[in-house]
Amino acid sequence: MSTQLTVLKLGGSVITHKDQREAVDDDSLARACDAVEAVRSADSRLVIVHGGGSFGHHHAAEHGVSSTDGTTDARGLTAIHRAMGELNETVVDALQDRGVDALPVRPLSVAHRNREHLDFPAGSVAAMLDEGFTPVAHGDVVVDSGRGGTILSGDDIVVSLARSLSADHVGLCSTVPGVLDTAGEVIDRIEAYEDVAPALGGSEATDVTGGMAHKVRQLLDLDVPASIFELDDIETFFERGAAGTVIDG
Amino acid sequence: MSTQLTVLKLGGSVITHKDQREAVDDDSLARACDAVEAVRSADSRLVIVHGGGSFGHHHAAEHGVSSTDGTTDARGLTAIHRAMGELNETVVDALQDRGVDALPVRPLSVAHRNREHLDFPAGSVAAMLDEGFTPVAHGDVVVDSGRGGTILSGDDIVVSLARSLSADHVGLCSTVPGVLDTAGEVIDRIEAYEDVAPALGGSEATDVTGGMAHKVRQLLDLDVPASIFELDDIETFFERGAAGTVIDG
Repeated sequence: MSTQLTVLKLGGSVITHKDQREAVDDDSLARACDAVEAVRSADSRLVIVHGGGSFGHHHAAEHGVSSTDGTTDARGLTAIHRAMGELNETVVDALQDRGVDALPVRPLSVAHRNREHLDFPAGSVAAMLDEGFTPVAHGDVVVDSGRGGTILSGDDIVVSLARSLSADHVGLCSTVPGVLDTAGEVIDRIEAYEDVAPALGGSEATDVTGGMAHKVRQLLDLDVPASIFELDDIETFFERGAAGTVIDG
Repeated sequence: MSTQLTVLKLGGSVITHKDQREAVDDDSLARACDAVEAVRSADSRLVIVHGGGSFGHHHAAEHGVSSTDGTTDARGLTAIHRAMGELNETVVDALQDRGVDALPVRPLSVAHRNREHLDFPAGSVAAMLDEGFTPVAHGDVVVDSGRGGTILSGDDIVVSLARSLSADHVGLCSTVPGVLDTAGEVIDRIEAYEDVAPALGGSEATDVTGGMAHKVRQLLDLDVPASIFELDDIETFFERGAAGTVIDG
């Protein structure tokens, strides 16, 4: 019997009301945490990463910080980091309320980046899993060589941890039911970028939204099957290890 | 011109009122932060580590957690971690108020331990220093193989970071003016444990207080000169790189 490791991303737009400042979507968070509670077992291990939603994005915009535009203003970085910390406490509490032994992981403390290269040592997360805890990380600010601090997305953390921990499954719980084709239908499976280039704007297109095209490319590079699905499919994802669109390069 | 790196520990008993629950000693914290502000310069780099004082110890005692007695109760570990996080925010704020670009480092997120062996990857701290930030870490809970989570002391973090970052100076700002001899006088310099065995209880003695004897042994093992001094000597420490008792094995 092998223990299965899953890395689950809870999108910031799923667990917060993105148009209201620092507003948790309590119903959606409860739904996601109920699903996590239901799949707890001795032979499954889970790492959760959540996005920033309305907690991170407002502060980031105010301080002019993005994934490429940095700041050396420690106060600005701390403001973004603390707002994300509040959301992280809410997620950790919701899981602990359901008997899940969740522990916080603050990326600013552990990771750093040099342009595209993210160094996120996974030893503390692996130790938490070995002791039966469920690590809960989040999109955050991170020190970025030559740029001060920039935004580190939850997606980037998912990819890094899934790789270093040799995860069996990756799930991205999103506000969309999967990657959509040109007719607006969910694509079941993507094995190469060319399969979806028409829908996502071509292999050379700039991904102005920082959205789906970049996500699909990252997940194709990852040697772990990844699913993009909406909250209604989270139970299916846990049951089958796949839901929505499966990306498996 | 070489950049000097100092690792400074602010004892929990220095910056909090240890007998009152979660009470910052504002005057002492201000005094320490003023000294840090005064020594800021382009050719000096500083890592700060603070203890728990009245923020960590009460919660740790309530949950029955020590550096060797662990718990698998995530709620208990989170309670201790959050209390320490509050003190850390206070220290970070006090430094930022003085123009020091302080950033928090939460050891639970980055470190883990297997009995005596502490693994504290220093890449994020080194990146903060390279970008001109002042990392501020703290005594915390840490995942400990086979024990759930235990207490990680600020002293252990100081020793680990001073070693991995090849620090030039280590300072432990304490409530005592140094290591005292049997007559109660400050010992200027310790180069071997035998020098102070009479005062500290002999080389084989059990260190029931978890205090000075263990600290001296750790610092003798460290290949960086370390000073133990009281708050009144913090300016002297910054000026000369030494104050109180210098331990240099």
